[in-house]
Amino acid sequence: MSEPNAQWRLAARPVGLPKPSDWEYVEEPAPEPGDGQFQVKLEYISLDPAMRGWMNEARSYVPPVGIGEVMRAGGLGRVTDSRHPDFAPGELVSGMLGVQRFAVSDGTGIRPVDETLGPAPVHLGALGMTGLTAYFGLLDVGRPESGQTVVVSGAAGAVGSVVGQIARIKGCRTIGIAGGPDKCAWLTEQLGFDAAIDYKAGEVRAELRRHAPDGVDVYFDNVGGEILDEVLRRLARHARVVICGAISQYNATQPPHGPANYMQLLVERASMAGFLVFDYARRYPEAIAQLAEWLKNGELRSREDVVRADLEQFPEVFLRLFRGENVGKLILQLDGEEA
Amino acid sequence: MSEPNAQWRLAARPVGLPKPSDWEYVEEPAPEPGDGQFQVKLEYISLDPAMRGWMNEARSYVPPVGIGEVMRAGGLGRVTDSRHPDFAPGELVSGMLGVQRFAVSDGTGIRPVDETLGPAPVHLGALGMTGLTAYFGLLDVGRPESGQTVVVSGAAGAVGSVVGQIARIKGCRTIGIAGGPDKCAWLTEQLGFDAAIDYKAGEVRAELRRHAPDGVDVYFDNVGGEILDEVLRRLARHARVVICGAISQYNATQPPHGPANYMQLLVERASMAGFLVFDYARRYPEAIAQLAEWLKNGELRSREDVVRADLEQFPEVFLRLFRGENVGKLILQLDGEEA
Repeated sequence: MSEPNAQWRLAARPVGLPKPSDWEYVEEPAPEPGDGQFQVKLEYISLDPAMRGWMNEARSYVPPVGIGEVMRAGGLGRVTDSRHPDFAPGELVSGMLGVQRFAVSDGTGIRPVDETLGPAPVHLGALGMTGLTAYFGLLDVGRPESGQTVVVSGAAGAVGSVVGQIARIKGCRTIGIAGGPDKCAWLTEQLGFDAAIDYKAGEVRAELRRHAPDGVDVYFDNVGGEILDEVLRRLARHARVVICGAISQYNATQPPHGPANYMQLLVERASMAGFLVFDYARRYPEAIAQLAEWLKNGELRSREDVVRADLEQFPEVFLRLFRGENVGKLILQLDGEEA
Repeated sequence: MSEPNAQWRLAARPVGLPKPSDWEYVEEPAPEPGDGQFQVKLEYISLDPAMRGWMNEARSYVPPVGIGEVMRAGGLGRVTDSRHPDFAPGELVSGMLGVQRFAVSDGTGIRPVDETLGPAPVHLGALGMTGLTAYFGLLDVGRPESGQTVVVSGAAGAVGSVVGQIARIKGCRTIGIAGGPDKCAWLTEQLGFDAAIDYKAGEVRAELRRHAPDGVDVYFDNVGGEILDEVLRRLARHARVVICGAISQYNATQPPHGPANYMQLLVERASMAGFLVFDYARRYPEAIAQLAEWLKNGELRSREDVVRADLEQFPEVFLRLFRGENVGKLILQLDGEEA
């Protein structure tokens, strides 16, 4: 008899920070692929702040995860059985495979992974949706020019740490906002940020004034809330604010805190724009080639915070995101797989 | 002895809605022009919501009016005495002449008015900063395309009523948001808006759903606050939000209400941008020629709400703006001048 499947299914719409009981852990026989399908055994599950939004019922850019459905997540796995012409057993693939041990897919949204470009977890980090989000959000939406000042929040997180490095590669003055001295030291000492601001030290306004005396040309926002408001106060003329996320608001039980200083957009003739990486799918190869080159020549570092655990530990590993415990890309590596 | 000057000078930083005592009314001898200067006798004073912002101490796109300084305002007046080669007595000019009877200028920011294009007040309305603000904000920042849905708030106000008409001229589906059934009827029956939503009737969300079933492609915002939040909920994919003003917040004594639904910018890959008409100064002639042509052929109507009164009545006429009492462009015509 084959190995059983294990899954986390959404059980309830969370109020505030999710509780383990908002999901249900179930085991059942592994699904068999039908014609034109293949079976994947997951090895790594990507843990992203956006997953919190998918648990809500509200209208968004993707339908909510339904109650009783497998929790949505990106992941990496190996094809274990295939009745699909383009996916062969043994191949490493990436896509929205869900929080489960086995997935069956018809290939929609599933990409083969070029293992020669880097170890598996990097394909969820700088060479995965994380790196692609940073790449297109910063370069296409933020459009920084050499010599300009770029600020990124959530700077020690998955996307933020790549954004800051790309900004540095492009010749920008790069300032990261992160929580705690260790994360800040990592940004400046290891990743080459020009400055890091520890928001937990409570001096964001003064530190922005100090490190961005001529204003902020590009702000890449992952957090929303008060930090967004502080950076709006310091925008330079014609600044671009890139809205990538708002982790400070995802678990709010009150209506979200809107950016009270948004009229600075008028004062500074600035703009604020949202984007979704999926819209750039046709350009993924270009971006991955560039990111891989930067990784290879040492200009870019991908840091994955890989937690090796049983699938059953998913809720508590996921919640590390909202306690600011991860540095770099948080990944659940399923126990029983090779490191 | 020559006619005395009368002025309203800023006396205090208002808290909330300005009170008459926030200004001081003074009379003194009319100023004489020096070399390279000219004297203007004001006939019309432009009353604009933005003036409220200039009374605050906060950093903005222009320095605040200083305590004791003449209240800043746009206006129209006739040159009465000149020692400047480019401005001859009798000429009608437009510019930031202040809330006073006589101004002296060196010509900075003062434009001659082509009286053949329309009666004097129109040069503060559709052919003045009002029309220019509508023209560049809608066409350059909002970039509507024929067939798209354009929503404008403060639609019965000076800028809003021109924005909606330009949108209609450009082939857009045009929806105005205004306060009260009379203003709404004016928009649809006289100005050719496709629909008008009376926000005082309290059904903005349902009415937006009804009139913009496919979403809002361009939102031109003059009001901020809850209406901005409601329109954000209904943005179409790749929508543009043009931030022109936020009259609902100008007299707030609490921190401004930021747009809580700003993450719709991400969901819909939309953008929100501020602008200032002054940045388009080199293109004013192009815009004025176009606006004048539309006025002439009847496609565009300029409505001025001209209140004829003594300069001493300035505070109470100004405050009509914040009670929503004006329809079209509010102008103080100084008593003693020809209608």
